[in-house]
Order: sequence, then structure tokens, then C-alpha cells
Amino acid sequence: MSAFPPESPSAAQQVLLPSPFRLQAGGVLEGAEVAVETYGTLSPGRDNAILLFTGLSASAHAASHPADTSSGWWEGMIGPGKALDTTRYFVISVNSLGSCFGSTGPASPNPVTGCPYGADFPELRVEDIARASQAAVDALGIDQLAAVVGCSLGGMTVLAHAVCFPGRARAMVSISGAVAANAAAIATRSLQREMVGSLLRAGAPQESVRQAMRWARKIGVLSYVGTELLEKRFGRDQTEPFAGRGSGTDFEVESWLEHLAQKFVRQFDPWAYWYISRAMDLFDFAAHGAAPEGDAVVHRHDAADAARAASYLRLERTLIIGVQEDLLFPVNQQREIAGVLDAAGIQTDYVELASPYGHDAFLTETALFTPVLAGFLDELGIGLPGTALRQAAALRR
Amino acid sequence: MSAFPPESPSAAQQVLLPSPFRLQAGGVLEGAEVAVETYGTLSPGRDNAILLFTGLSASAHAASHPADTSSGWWEGMIGPGKALDTTRYFVISVNSLGSCFGSTGPASPNPVTGCPYGADFPELRVEDIARASQAAVDALGIDQLAAVVGCSLGGMTVLAHAVCFPGRARAMVSISGAVAANAAAIATRSLQREMVGSLLRAGAPQESVRQAMRWARKIGVLSYVGTELLEKRFGRDQTEPFAGRGSGTDFEVESWLEHLAQKFVRQFDPWAYWYISRAMDLFDFAAHGAAPEGDAVVHRHDAADAARAASYLRLERTLIIGVQEDLLFPVNQQREIAGVLDAAGIQTDYVELASPYGHDAFLTETALFTPVLAGFLDELGIGLPGTALRQAAALRR
Repeated sequence: MSAFPPESPSAAQQVLLPSPFRLQAGGVLEGAEVAVETYGTLSPGRDNAILLFTGLSASAHAASHPADTSSGWWEGMIGPGKALDTTRYFVISVNSLGSCFGSTGPASPNPVTGCPYGADFPELRVEDIARASQAAVDALGIDQLAAVVGCSLGGMTVLAHAVCFPGRARAMVSISGAVAANAAAIATRSLQREMVGSLLRAGAPQESVRQAMRWARKIGVLSYVGTELLEKRFGRDQTEPFAGRGSGTDFEVESWLEHLAQKFVRQFDPWAYWYISRAMDLFDFAAHGAAPEGDAVVHRHDAADAARAASYLRLERTLIIGVQEDLLFPVNQQREIAGVLDAAGIQTDYVELASPYGHDAFLTETALFTPVLAGFLDELGIGLPGTALRQAAALRR
Repeated sequence: MSAFPPESPSAAQQVLLPSPFRLQAGGVLEGAEVAVETYGTLSPGRDNAILLFTGLSASAHAASHPADTSSGWWEGMIGPGKALDTTRYFVISVNSLGSCFGSTGPASPNPVTGCPYGADFPELRVEDIARASQAAVDALGIDQLAAVVGCSLGGMTVLAHAVCFPGRARAMVSISGAVAANAAAIATRSLQREMVGSLLRAGAPQESVRQAMRWARKIGVLSYVGTELLEKRFGRDQTEPFAGRGSGTDFEVESWLEHLAQKFVRQFDPWAYWYISRAMDLFDFAAHGAAPEGDAVVHRHDAADAARAASYLRLERTLIIGVQEDLLFPVNQQREIAGVLDAAGIQTDYVELASPYGHDAFLTETALFTPVLAGFLDELGIGLPGTALRQAAALRR
């Protein structure tokens, strides 16, 4: 799609994945790569690395740095003295495999044809995103991560990482994530995919595809923000000048949505949107604890399977954060994560925050998230002599 | 639009409106009519009539009757011994002005051109729906209604009726309604209008318009049903056979949405959807208590104005019902209605129900709504000698 290249190319570095790179659902990528940004300095002991997984649509540019001084998507959380304190930690941020900001995805050229993959991109799963990012960690020569941290899709990807790579991270932080998407989230996202995918498959004119992308993004945004926030921010304010019956918009909230949607369409590849969105819906942590299910693609979500999957994890400690106003990943889902981990004997902190920003809170509520995340990481004693949690705790006494 | 005529023409009777029929926003309709169904028998004293206002997309066919034995949209609530007991009450159900089930709307022929109005239909407001229905009541020779009852859009229309026709009804019941739509509801509905309206205005092929209608309806449905209901009913069940990466649907919840959307597109006119949806967003009861606001079309919602509007009402008693799981008209909005009425000195019952059906609960939760509505109407003593509430109460002692 010619939505590319994105407006502001990132200064991320490309890391080649092992080739061929085999995907969970059976597909293969040749010469695939992921875009990576890092912040802070890797310690001589290589024991201060934190791997960060993003939401559906973010790039690897999580924070500004000398090579790219624009604000990153988690600018408030990454930097000296911030929650991901770059004077202490080495933060690795990876653009998800399948995305379109430097990582191989449907917008990348298919080496067989030289043209963008589009619908020929192989089936993508959340586990593939985890595995591609771990390959970048391997390339950096890091045996064990101090922690993996992820928000939204990233809050699922950390679970995939933990179960695919037991022992490769000491700690895990899942923010506004889920063991598996619920029916309402599936319904909302699948509608967005239907809108974009049906036009792409029909070979519709680019303008029609972009229109569908705008609409899909608006549905997405409305699933991310809290109802009260919209009410407080826009209420029933009408546009000036008022559009009137003919066309256009009557209300300010419509103008705001349109602005966000147009911005998104300029940045994001429609097929990448389709593939990553679908990966989110197909993901089920519990499938990793299940017996093979014949031809079934969607795992029949089962608490016993989830418990078995959790028993495979090798984590010292986890932090699960939910936001009460989250409509897309409601707090019962974060409680489920915490419950499964706790039942598996993993030391688990569960924190529930209140924010009118709903699912998007992690992007804006720096003051709320900072003490929770910073405190958790601090207690891990990352980079202190002796990396085990209890040793670190003993040092502080 | 050739979505017409609807699959099952209703046996409703047409009632001519006064011609010209002047609309609130300045437009005029010539020879307009509304489709009306009635259930039960009008008492000799003409004091047992209940006027029913519908949601956005319902016809006048609220209950089965000899001329149309198909189930109506409120079948469980209307009939002998039911909440709207047809052995006692005379129920008048009107297809909203602007709709497409026998009432004049955008799909009706414009008498000037002979072609459907489409975008030339004059601007529609909720007050026009109330006034057209009251014209049907006038045509039946009823001076005073025992009650007006409305759900969803109808829960707003009863407020419009009450303020446009003080004293013409003794009681009012507003179910899952609002004084005015909130920002999230406006955002959700305006997106649906954008999708349908932009294609209609562009003269897009009928197939594209129908596609946009399907998508719009899916957004609508997802705003009506509760998250927990979807989870319980569909969870993560996959379709059989599984569609796979190529196209189609992965999950059962998608198939269900598609079925509902296809059914809707066969029945409802796209322009009617656009006009009525917009009327819902532009409605503000408080505007009736406000000083003229120059060129502003959307009233700047104001509690003092709402209080002033409520002071104009002449109602013996009101019943306001909200459903805790309602995402589209959250209970704070029904509390607002009840608070405004109560502050105006109107005897007001407020009942909050719990139902996983959310905004749609009034359509399905017969057992929950029946005692509340039946009890309220019973206390009005409708049709008993002496219609005033206190007299009726005295009679029972």
C-alpha cells in the first residue's frame, strides 16, 4: 500500500532474524528483520535489559533519543529518572513483526515477487511477535532479560514470551492485557478487519481502502477511550461552523475522531493492521497448556489449560496492571492473568488503577503508572550485584 | 433506496398528518402520514389510552394481532394480562415520522418530484416524531392520554412529547432514555451516519451502500448489547468450518453480527437510518428551557435550562427505568432524567435494573420489566372512575 513510507522514518536499527524464520502457524519468512531502538546502556554483566512490547499500532520509537528527537509513544515512561530509568536499565523496544515501521510485515517486499506481501503474508500470531523480538535480544548477546514489559497487545505478548522462552526473563509486567481476548473485543476488532480486509481483497481503489481504514480506526479509538473522558472533553459541543444537514460533522467529538483517523491512515499499512489485529484475537495463553486439538485454530479457552501453561513459566516475579475504565480489556481479564500466575506459585503483584482514559491510560497517565512500575522494577534490584530478587531485597535492608 | 418495500409489510393503518406539517427545524411536509397500530379497546370515557414510542429502527408493529399475527417488537409486554394489559388499556403504537414502515420518511416519494426524498427530506428532530404521533392521537379523538411510554429513542421522545404537549398525558414512562445523548453515544452514532451518508451522497453503488449499512448496524448492535452477554453466549467459539486466513469469519460472534446486519439491511432504509440517528443526537430536552441561542443548532446542555424545561411539564407521575449494563445510555443519564423531574416537583419513580442485555434489555427482559411497568400503570388507576391518581389510590383502600 502506498500509505508508505510513513511520514517520519524512525531512526531504529534493523536486526536480521534467523532465515528462514518459521512462524507458529506454519508460514516461513526469508530474510525477515525487525526494527529495534534501545535506550540506556547495557551493563557489563548484561543483566539490566528490559524488553518492551508495544500495542497494535506503535513503532519501536518508544522514546526520544539523539538520533530521533521526536517524542516516542512512551516518552513519559522512558528516560533518566523515569519509570524505565535509562540511567539504570537498558530498554529494548522492538517494532512488532508484521507491523510497518521497519519490521517485516505485509507492506514489505515479498522476496519471491519483489512486490509487497499484502494478503500473501503468512499467518501471524502473537507468539511470532514474541519470538522475533527475542531474536533481537539474542542478537544483542543477552542471555537473560531483567524484565519484559508490554501494554495492550504487548500485555499479551509478554505472556507469549514467558511461555515460549521460560527462564529468559526474570520478571514480567503485563499492562492492560489479557490471557485471551473476550467476545466483545473480538467483535469490535473483527469488524474493523472486515471493513479493511474486504476492500483490500476486492482490489478497491486506494481511496476506498483509506476510507475503510479511517472508519476502522474510529471504531478502535472508541474502544480505547473511556466514556467519561469523551463526555468531559467534548460533551455536546457543536462544530463551528456547524456543518448542517448537508454533510460533514455536527459535533466536536466527530472532528476529533476524524483528525485521529486521518493521522492514522497516513501512518499505518492496512494489511499490517489486519494481520496484527487478527493475531490479537487468535491468541490464547491457555493453548500452551492444552493437548493438540486436531484442526481447531482457536483454542477452546480452558482454565485448566491456562494453569498448565502457567506451570511452564520460569519467572521470579510479575506485575499485572489493569484500568477500571478499560472497555476493551476489562479488569476481570487482568485479574484472570494475576490469578493464573498466582495459582502457579509465581510471586504476582496486581494493581488496579482508575483513569478516565480507559484502555489508553498507559499512554497518558504517567503519574499513575510511574510509581507502580518504578517500584516493581526497583524491587527487582536490576543491575545490583547478584540478580536474584531475594539477594536484592537483602541488600536494601 | 430499493431496500424497499420491507419484507413483511405491516398491517398498520395510515393516519394523515395535518398538511402542511411544519417541522421543528423549519422544513415542511405535504400529505405526510404515520403508520399506527392499536391494541385493546378505547374506553367510552377515552381515558385508557397509552401512546408508545419506539427505538430507532422499530415499526409500529409492537405486538401481534389478528390482522398481523407475527410477533411484534414488544410482544412480551403487550397483550391480555401483560404489562400493557390490553384488557384494560388501549395501546397506540406509531412508526416514527422519518422511518420507513408506513410513515413518511426519506424513502417516501417527494410529492414535488415523485421520487424518494433521500437527502432532500427536511431536517428531522425528536420533537417532530413526538408531534406526528400526537397528531395520530388527535385523530383518534383522545383529549388526554393515560400515559406515554418509550424505550431508547422512545425514552427521549416521551420527554419531547411531555414538553411539547403539557397536560396531554397524565403519566410518562422513559426506559433507557436520556435528557440528551452523551459524547460517546454521539461518537458511535455519528460514525454510523458518516459511513452510510458518505456513500449515499457520493451516489455509490447500492451494494456499497448496503455494505456500509451492514457495518453501521454492527457498530450499533455492539453498542446495544452488554459485554458479559457476548462473552457468555459466544466466548471464543470459532466458526465451523473455520474460515482461515483467506477471508470470512473466524469467530461465532462474527457470524452472529453478520446475520443481524444482513437482516437489518433488508428491512431498513439507509436515509431513514441517517435522519433518525441524527435526530437522536441533536435532541436536548434542556433546549426547551433555554433562551434562543442565535445560530446554534446544538443546545449547550445546561442543568438550569433542563430544570426550566421540566417546570413546563404537566404530569401526575413518571417512571424512569435504567439498566446498569447499558453502555449507550448509561444509568447516570436515567438518574439525570429522574433528578430533573423530581426537582420540578413531579412524583417520580426511578428503577434501576440489572441485565446482561444492556441497552437492549427492554426487548428481552420481559420478566424484569413487567412488574415495574405493570405496577406503575396499575397505581395510575387508568380507566377507573375518576382518573386522578389520588382518587384511584383512595379507591383501592
